[in-house]
Amino acid sequence: MRFVIIGGSDAGISAALRAHELDSAVHITVLLADSFPNYSICGLPFYLSGETPDWRKLAHRTEFEGIEILAEHSAQSFDPSGKTVSAIDAAGHEKAIRYDQLLIATGARPVIPPISGIDLPGVFPLHTMADSFRVNDYLAQREPRSAVIVGAGYIGLEMADAFTHRGSAVTLIEQSSTVLPTVDPRFGRMVEETLRSHGVRVESATEVHKIVQNGDRLQVFGARGLEVSAELVLVAVGVAPNTAVATSASLQTGIKGALCVNRRMETSIPGVFAAGDCVETWHRLLSGYTYLPLGTTSHKQGRVAGENAVGGSREFEGSLGTQVVKVFELAFARTGLREAEARKAGFQPFTSESTHFDHKAYYPGAQELCISITGDTVTGSLLGAQALGHWQAGVAKRIDVFATALFHDMKVEALNDLDLSYTPPLGSPWDPVQMAAQAWNQRRQQGCVAG
Amino acid sequence: MRFVIIGGSDAGISAALRAHELDSAVHITVLLADSFPNYSICGLPFYLSGETPDWRKLAHRTEFEGIEILAEHSAQSFDPSGKTVSAIDAAGHEKAIRYDQLLIATGARPVIPPISGIDLPGVFPLHTMADSFRVNDYLAQREPRSAVIVGAGYIGLEMADAFTHRGSAVTLIEQSSTVLPTVDPRFGRMVEETLRSHGVRVESATEVHKIVQNGDRLQVFGARGLEVSAELVLVAVGVAPNTAVATSASLQTGIKGALCVNRRMETSIPGVFAAGDCVETWHRLLSGYTYLPLGTTSHKQGRVAGENAVGGSREFEGSLGTQVVKVFELAFARTGLREAEARKAGFQPFTSESTHFDHKAYYPGAQELCISITGDTVTGSLLGAQALGHWQAGVAKRIDVFATALFHDMKVEALNDLDLSYTPPLGSPWDPVQMAAQAWNQRRQQGCVAG
Repeated sequence: MRFVIIGGSDAGISAALRAHELDSAVHITVLLADSFPNYSICGLPFYLSGETPDWRKLAHRTEFEGIEILAEHSAQSFDPSGKTVSAIDAAGHEKAIRYDQLLIATGARPVIPPISGIDLPGVFPLHTMADSFRVNDYLAQREPRSAVIVGAGYIGLEMADAFTHRGSAVTLIEQSSTVLPTVDPRFGRMVEETLRSHGVRVESATEVHKIVQNGDRLQVFGARGLEVSAELVLVAVGVAPNTAVATSASLQTGIKGALCVNRRMETSIPGVFAAGDCVETWHRLLSGYTYLPLGTTSHKQGRVAGENAVGGSREFEGSLGTQVVKVFELAFARTGLREAEARKAGFQPFTSESTHFDHKAYYPGAQELCISITGDTVTGSLLGAQALGHWQAGVAKRIDVFATALFHDMKVEALNDLDLSYTPPLGSPWDPVQMAAQAWNQRRQQGCVAG
Repeated sequence: MRFVIIGGSDAGISAALRAHELDSAVHITVLLADSFPNYSICGLPFYLSGETPDWRKLAHRTEFEGIEILAEHSAQSFDPSGKTVSAIDAAGHEKAIRYDQLLIATGARPVIPPISGIDLPGVFPLHTMADSFRVNDYLAQREPRSAVIVGAGYIGLEMADAFTHRGSAVTLIEQSSTVLPTVDPRFGRMVEETLRSHGVRVESATEVHKIVQNGDRLQVFGARGLEVSAELVLVAVGVAPNTAVATSASLQTGIKGALCVNRRMETSIPGVFAAGDCVETWHRLLSGYTYLPLGTTSHKQGRVAGENAVGGSREFEGSLGTQVVKVFELAFARTGLREAEARKAGFQPFTSESTHFDHKAYYPGAQELCISITGDTVTGSLLGAQALGHWQAGVAKRIDVFATALFHDMKVEALNDLDLSYTPPLGSPWDPVQMAAQAWNQRRQQGCVAG
């Protein structure tokens, strides 16, 4: 049996490893568009900051025993009736590769906004290893003292940190009203404060109009008279599914052009799976599909697809949209639905924000955590949580406790029943997760009495 | 309605707060044997180490609005027919206090082993604020350069750290084969290595026979010819339920003499609740009772009792035995059953131990985590987990993810479905929790093939 995988990043390699683990007799071939199988794209900001000087360390793994990796093989199309994939190799030769089971794991591509000057030298997207080499070469040659970042999502924020770390003055421009547009604005403003305290100029609610070359500098013009001069412009305004190969065989697409799959990660064509940043993602709380391109999700979907491709019967259990980002000394993490998302989905949400020390204040080094809980006022169910605090104060792992609770559709009040660990240097007898749950309950009751 | 609570530590205050929150019309009285309501007994090692110089900071809270606290009121007995508690106040006067609902939250007392010389000056237990003042005075006056600790459980280990921090040479003596007798011996040995690397002399598998005064020093004699001289001996060999008041009214006792309660925290006498270190604890995985005195459990049981005392209907959802301890730079945490406990309880356990970086190794500061998972080979269910690593590497909170999973009776393999957070400085696309679950599955299958 031949299992062919188009794409050698998170979803593709995860599928290959799982298929090989379950049935080592299957012949597994991964077609890789570049030469970097299973690289950590999430690590690019740390390569560019200089914290990870050797890009080779970004490989999640370098051993692929039992898996054939065809590097520099760019898949062009596939033919479901003949069960072949057509690819062009490094030498420019076209090859037909036969498959019994096929996985499309072609990932995403950066969205390039239609701004005049976006293609000028010194303006870069950041999505692939090749992108990062280009930026790194430019940094090494030019040693820019100033950079503009367009887009203040996760990558934009990490790159603001990275360029600052490398000694550039950074201006961060975001179209939405605050940075991190996918979090509650209050948290976004707290992240902005941290960015500013590290010298980053933050221009929220500002659309970029054009980029103009001015000698060896770039002038960025935006709304409300914004004009910034910089030596480098990084564009990080999001990604879109990369589906050219898939649509060659008329595979169905949905939200934002992502491929439609069922929870077994099957497309509309039998024997053809799809997973990762190129597909619609099942959302566990919404019981419906969304587009949520994340490495964690890609790994899980790939593993499910790999299992099913070799005869398994596994369903993807769904995303909760769990994410964390570190910006300077701060970590922000979230899981589940924000209030507005919950309301839109038909819940009757109530959100409470409370602040707790990460561990007993009497033990040195206690840090404040700001935790927001959204729950449903009708059922009492937990719907989502967000947390912000010092990056070493357990922000991410506490969100993981919330995520595990959400996975099991827990009530907010039931969080108090969880037997969580405690020692004064690391927590409280009621963990901040539970203190935040108690605050939610108290405020909801006060709100009901008041209202 | 009068709700009287005997004991003002974790369970008692937690009950009082919950009762007041739910019904502010109830008259709540807490009888406190000393003057330190709701103090963090778990913080005593940090007070004695000097890391928390002001003992007043050990108070979990200092405001008890709407709750009457009677300090220096030592409850002697209670009369279920007359519904009164008899107590002696600071002036030595006996008082009768009427109740409608009663909570016994008298906690535990340290076990004093029957060793000759255990009552010599310079030999101390450590359980109450008064104990800690005595030790602290002795430390201040004598500035001992050497200390022996008898017992290497959680308190013993924390005190080994504390005395070392304060400049004493420490000998730690433990009767069991390794320190931390409630964890897997392999982990116990790793903790021993850390203790020794900090200069602590560890004598495991060694019973203490006698303590003898020798001038201004104490000689500790033990098995296999052990003889250690020190200026201070701390005895921390565990605690036993403190039930004198309760047994005055013939309340039923069970395991280790702890009070029998149902999951509503009711004793055999209507209107009389009991909670905390003086009661048997419902174990969620064993579906039975055990004696597991822990502050986290006391808080939860107290809250359930407080809710039910004012007319609620809440059940204690059970302990998983979740615990964490920090010793020098190391944290060790556990939840659920160890292999031997699981086997004894009728499961067919398999345990796999694996080592993973706490975050992507390419980002600076990655630390190794050693994670052990015990699961049932018949059902695939998670039964327990243990983890050891640098105390700031997310050991405790990852055990909390396991604890939340255990609470919901998850399969080991299903841990891979959890949508946990990821950023390279704080985790991996598969969190170590999930990599350990994958290792458990692979090794179990290899074991089955091999076996």
